[in-house]
Amino acid sequence: MAQRPQFAGWLSDTNDVTATFLAAGQIPGLINLGGGLPEPSTYPAAELSALAGRAIEEHPHATLNYPPIDGLPALRDLLAKRFTTDTLHLTRDNVIITSGGMQALDLVGKVLVDAGQTITCQSPAYLGAIDAWKPRLPSYRPIKLEDDNLDLTAAFTGAQFAYTVPNFSNPSGRLVSLEQRKAIVDAAHATGTWLVEDDPYGSLYLDGEPLPRLLDLSAAQKPGPYDGPIIYMGTFSKEVAPGLRIGWIIAAPELIAALKTAKQGSDMCSSGLSQQVVIGAFEQGLPEKILPNVLATYRARRDALLEAMDEHLAPFYEWERPVGGMFVWARARDPMLDTNALLKEGLSHGVCISPSSVFDPEGTDRGGVRINFTLNTEDKLREGARRLAIATASLISKHRQAA
Amino acid sequence: MAQRPQFAGWLSDTNDVTATFLAAGQIPGLINLGGGLPEPSTYPAAELSALAGRAIEEHPHATLNYPPIDGLPALRDLLAKRFTTDTLHLTRDNVIITSGGMQALDLVGKVLVDAGQTITCQSPAYLGAIDAWKPRLPSYRPIKLEDDNLDLTAAFTGAQFAYTVPNFSNPSGRLVSLEQRKAIVDAAHATGTWLVEDDPYGSLYLDGEPLPRLLDLSAAQKPGPYDGPIIYMGTFSKEVAPGLRIGWIIAAPELIAALKTAKQGSDMCSSGLSQQVVIGAFEQGLPEKILPNVLATYRARRDALLEAMDEHLAPFYEWERPVGGMFVWARARDPMLDTNALLKEGLSHGVCISPSSVFDPEGTDRGGVRINFTLNTEDKLREGARRLAIATASLISKHRQAA
Repeated sequence: MAQRPQFAGWLSDTNDVTATFLAAGQIPGLINLGGGLPEPSTYPAAELSALAGRAIEEHPHATLNYPPIDGLPALRDLLAKRFTTDTLHLTRDNVIITSGGMQALDLVGKVLVDAGQTITCQSPAYLGAIDAWKPRLPSYRPIKLEDDNLDLTAAFTGAQFAYTVPNFSNPSGRLVSLEQRKAIVDAAHATGTWLVEDDPYGSLYLDGEPLPRLLDLSAAQKPGPYDGPIIYMGTFSKEVAPGLRIGWIIAAPELIAALKTAKQGSDMCSSGLSQQVVIGAFEQGLPEKILPNVLATYRARRDALLEAMDEHLAPFYEWERPVGGMFVWARARDPMLDTNALLKEGLSHGVCISPSSVFDPEGTDRGGVRINFTLNTEDKLREGARRLAIATASLISKHRQAA
Repeated sequence: MAQRPQFAGWLSDTNDVTATFLAAGQIPGLINLGGGLPEPSTYPAAELSALAGRAIEEHPHATLNYPPIDGLPALRDLLAKRFTTDTLHLTRDNVIITSGGMQALDLVGKVLVDAGQTITCQSPAYLGAIDAWKPRLPSYRPIKLEDDNLDLTAAFTGAQFAYTVPNFSNPSGRLVSLEQRKAIVDAAHATGTWLVEDDPYGSLYLDGEPLPRLLDLSAAQKPGPYDGPIIYMGTFSKEVAPGLRIGWIIAAPELIAALKTAKQGSDMCSSGLSQQVVIGAFEQGLPEKILPNVLATYRARRDALLEAMDEHLAPFYEWERPVGGMFVWARARDPMLDTNALLKEGLSHGVCISPSSVFDPEGTDRGGVRINFTLNTEDKLREGARRLAIATASLISKHRQAA
């Protein structure tokens, strides 16, 4: 047979970490600290099942026909109302429904990035965002928000957009302070750059009160219907359950209109059945209803993990205590430690972590690991930390022998 | 406020036809022959409602957690089995689930097209395919399958893929003959080009027996598990109901693997709830159960439309009787008739059609109209044809006065 055409160029830019992850799923007894999954027992399955049972019967048009490209009007209205405050004025025109949070990232890339253009990106950054934007061939300008000398205006100037996760960033778990939130919003207003506020973990404050969203801080600067530079992304996946694949973007109407054009050519519209179930879930207040149990579960697991890390991992890593979200981000003390190699070494000791390279837009950082605390029981987290210590010691010993 | 970054270049390539369509939805009493929607009364709403009611309770993991990127294994297995024949051998590895047929087009564009590369495209072509590929900046090589002098080998050589809709192409309603199907498959095998067989209307044979798929003809040439050049696309939208947003691609495993990478960064996975309902629908044989009523309804509507077209539109247009699908494609006899202008003229006479320009990858064809016969009752179709005749006569009269 004749030779086949090559795949698109962006597909060649892969690493073997993903393949290693996939293989990990087959290892018996493995403790997987590498993912970012919620605890399924927190899903309100009975309530969602009842909603699904009524959705088609009560709303056959909305669930079985093509829904509008930008989402069911009732869901857009409900989200506009949910995020409206005294100073943030939203209507349906500020909202588009997406097929999960991942599609929100894909659509923003399609609408705002031509090949070679610049994305200013909080670093380390969410793996999924880097994946979503690969086909657009962007150029990255990584910024470290913890850097005291960071010049935000210079960082934002000339970029198509800036990407931030102010609440418990994936992977770092970092919470951006109120003072820095204000500075970020000011820089976006001053430079005109669009500013993505990706907020999947906004409900997961394990300690303390939620800080204002960038969206709220931006709206407070200008009265009237929102038309500012913030592109706010939320998702039903982390608030209730991921399997329905419903997320949303709140932004200026001109951007929502462009995203709608991009969504039309991406999947036409999101599942009408999923959207109708999400409407019912919001109307019943399910996110608020399950939140206390979610927070109690995750708080206990985080505390168990941190205690075990203090016991087993302090010689090898340093980390900050995350005040929310799903992850602990640990940096290796030994500059020789290669966490890509640690992923494989860990698997042979029955534990899986995420290495820092996959969160680096340039793929070079080998000095950190992301450890998830939401999916495993406290006992498993303790045992996972113990295994990771053994794997780390073993790898360091191998590095020393090779050096 | 500082100036905002420009949107990506492909977004500037729009016309005002879409805006005109949207405005049309607001006109009272309008007869819309411009869309491509199924008749909602054919949807098995009660059966789908019962399936949705059981899906979460019986399959909480599949419906509420993240489903696998490439789809629920049970659905992939079911589709592999459904399309397997004596000579076509398929496994799960040949199948990926997509969020509707539109996402299948989007993913193929992401995986196979870099800017400037060539797509060989049956012309006129499905509007949605052109939309899906715009962000990839392709170069088009249009082919007319009705052209007796068409050299398929030359047409396919050097293209990343060729795009065809062999069953009742949108917009032309054309059925590709068995002889030409064989020639198309031979050319794909000889040149190595990937060959997209987009088949949303494959169940809608209103007259006669279905012809073999390109996928079947390709598989018959080579024994063993399928790894040939056909990329077959199907959808639940036209077989049962569109609101669940479930489609599928059947192709060589190496292509499915690349599509999976693209889907991961597009929407991570399709709605687990929708997928579980589709599994139940296939297990109950719902597509086969509703098909006789679907065909009887659409056959009567097609016949009513054609009769009314004979009566009112023969002086202005010529067309072929479609033996399936959802559309009649009419070409204007008067070369001066501009069907973009006819869209607007028709709206002022209470009828909406799709002009040929939106189905032309180069956007220049102004000589045809696509008329849908699936959504409206026979009476409305007759009245729509009558209104279209009045609008056409009015526009020709205006053209003559201006000339």
